[in-house]
Amino acid sequence: MPIRLNSIDEWSPQGPVTELSDEQSWLLLDGSSFGRLGVSLDNQPEIFPVNYAADGASILFRTAEGTKLRDLIANQSVVFEADAQTGDSAWSVTVKGTARVLDTVEDIEAADQQILPDWHPTKPFVYVRIVSSQISGRQYKRGPLAGHI
Amino acid sequence: MPIRLNSIDEWSPQGPVTELSDEQSWLLLDGSSFGRLGVSLDNQPEIFPVNYAADGASILFRTAEGTKLRDLIANQSVVFEADAQTGDSAWSVTVKGTARVLDTVEDIEAADQQILPDWHPTKPFVYVRIVSSQISGRQYKRGPLAGHI
Repeated sequence: MPIRLNSIDEWSPQGPVTELSDEQSWLLLDGSSFGRLGVSLDNQPEIFPVNYAADGASILFRTAEGTKLRDLIANQSVVFEADAQTGDSAWSVTVKGTARVLDTVEDIEAADQQILPDWHPTKPFVYVRIVSSQISGRQYKRGPLAGHI
Repeated sequence: MPIRLNSIDEWSPQGPVTELSDEQSWLLLDGSSFGRLGVSLDNQPEIFPVNYAADGASILFRTAEGTKLRDLIANQSVVFEADAQTGDSAWSVTVKGTARVLDTVEDIEAADQQILPDWHPTKPFVYVRIVSSQISGRQYKRGPLAGHI
């Protein structure tokens, strides 16, 4: 993969970091199906695992109705993250955007056409789509240990 | 593993859910080393991948100093999540607590004794410890698909 930008991230917990392009980031998301939804409720962070489908512009997932979904709707600014570890490197992609429960026949039918992984809710579900306003992908490599300050 | 409580979570995205005991949850965390830190900044959620060590009461990780760390310190209520997929099930454990940068010789020396995975920061680092105030573990099984509402 060509690399758009090579930089060291000050915050990185785990060695040299390479920033990935948006296209690379969406490709990685497309190749995975298990990620995490981060929401903020009264300034308290929460993380939930979700199965998802990515289409280059949004993240689609299903959820049954319940408390967490209501909270999610009440606070539509969310972050989604997926990652993987492979040998001596790891990648992580985050998508920030607005979560919306699909409620029109057209939107639901369009969602039905997207392939979602075969983890199924056992209760009647709704579709939630996060339309991306920002995607960020990073690749981490193992590096030599520095001292603590 | 014995199961403390068996319940269906209304929110579950992916089938029947079994609640795990605190002990089971810490055991799962102890067997993994790659998780995600969720923070809330001005009610905006953020997720960062971290390598960690778990000790049954807290989560320890390293980070270099930078913007994200400052934000983390400014907002000490955090959530940590780790998960794995195994065949026809998956687990996810979340820990809520307060993040604190270790700044005494005793605390830093104690952290030095904890085994952290061999992903190393390339810049001088600090230790951050999240003391757990609440741990929640869930195991997901594949289930039959229900219809959407």
